[in-house]
Amino acid sequence: MELPSRLMEVAVDQMASLPGIGRKTALRLVLHLLKRDEERVDAFARAFTDLRAGVRPCTTCSNLTESEQCSVCADPVRDERTICVVEDLRDLLAIEQLGLYKGRYHVLGGVISPMDGVGPSDLTVEALVARCGNPEWVQGTDGLPAEVIFALPTTMEGETTAFYLYKKLEPTGVRVTAIARGIAVGDDLQHADEATLAQSLNQRLPYST
Amino acid sequence: MELPSRLMEVAVDQMASLPGIGRKTALRLVLHLLKRDEERVDAFARAFTDLRAGVRPCTTCSNLTESEQCSVCADPVRDERTICVVEDLRDLLAIEQLGLYKGRYHVLGGVISPMDGVGPSDLTVEALVARCGNPEWVQGTDGLPAEVIFALPTTMEGETTAFYLYKKLEPTGVRVTAIARGIAVGDDLQHADEATLAQSLNQRLPYST
Repeated sequence: MELPSRLMEVAVDQMASLPGIGRKTALRLVLHLLKRDEERVDAFARAFTDLRAGVRPCTTCSNLTESEQCSVCADPVRDERTICVVEDLRDLLAIEQLGLYKGRYHVLGGVISPMDGVGPSDLTVEALVARCGNPEWVQGTDGLPAEVIFALPTTMEGETTAFYLYKKLEPTGVRVTAIARGIAVGDDLQHADEATLAQSLNQRLPYST
Repeated sequence: MELPSRLMEVAVDQMASLPGIGRKTALRLVLHLLKRDEERVDAFARAFTDLRAGVRPCTTCSNLTESEQCSVCADPVRDERTICVVEDLRDLLAIEQLGLYKGRYHVLGGVISPMDGVGPSDLTVEALVARCGNPEWVQGTDGLPAEVIFALPTTMEGETTAFYLYKKLEPTGVRVTAIARGIAVGDDLQHADEATLAQSLNQRLPYST
């Protein structure tokens, strides 16, 4: 489809470079932008240059921030001795939205996926191991070791990543846990897949009210 | 969902201001942009400011162009005495892609839709009537009046617009036609809707091979 102007070609190409946006959708969005006045289009464009220039990963946990440290790491009230490992910012936001987790985070920036060319060196694995490399932090003063919680996807890639991280973290003496898998709240058993049903049976807990 | 930075809020808001892009998708796209290097994000943003500053409607037909006149209007080979009326650029592109239409266009910029607050004055109706207001152009030298082809959507809004335009163009003496509706090529009759089947029966043509 030949567009009537080179500038439109460029704009449609750029829009279509976003994941999940095809050329037809890109054209629709570009035509929408052309209906806006110039000021609004400038504000649209500036939002992304400002974002890229102003937002960086937290030096501790790789959550995103405009400062050195993210708001979670800079919060003195949050439990320093619990680290929740997530794939990306969206998973962190999903947990934060619950409002019940009071520890810190570690954002991996992906999961190990040889098919997509993502190896451990593409993720913030070394930084996580370094965070757990302080024996005083691991042992603590209350006799309980520090805890690393895996909150990773329940996919093959997520499982592989969890196993890799576990092997890396084991020597540090940190207590490694993983969020529970089982029947989702509100679901019935007959519609659950076999793997989920089997895990929820194997990982049964004492009944409590 | 509270984002970890104000710049991210702004960027997600801007992305979500595009039609069909919800906040979850917007966040996914913004996180994708953050993974790119600064130069590529600047090029992304610049594409839209350049587009808005450089592209304007053709002064004759409202097709988009970087000059005064669009490439179709500026092409001396295209038949000046046939104007195809389309809702927007995407419909123009669909017809151009066929490579068989050799006339000019008129881009309305929408269809009349009282529900969406779009009236005739929001469209390029007056410009179309003005184009047909030259009696010499309408009569021509070969005895055949100039032709305006309606290639409008087959929706209620499209039909309303066509009727409105017809009433406006009737006094000019121009020959008004509309693209055929009927069973799509490759479809079978039993799955066609009643309105389409009725139209295709009413508008039957002499059989030709």
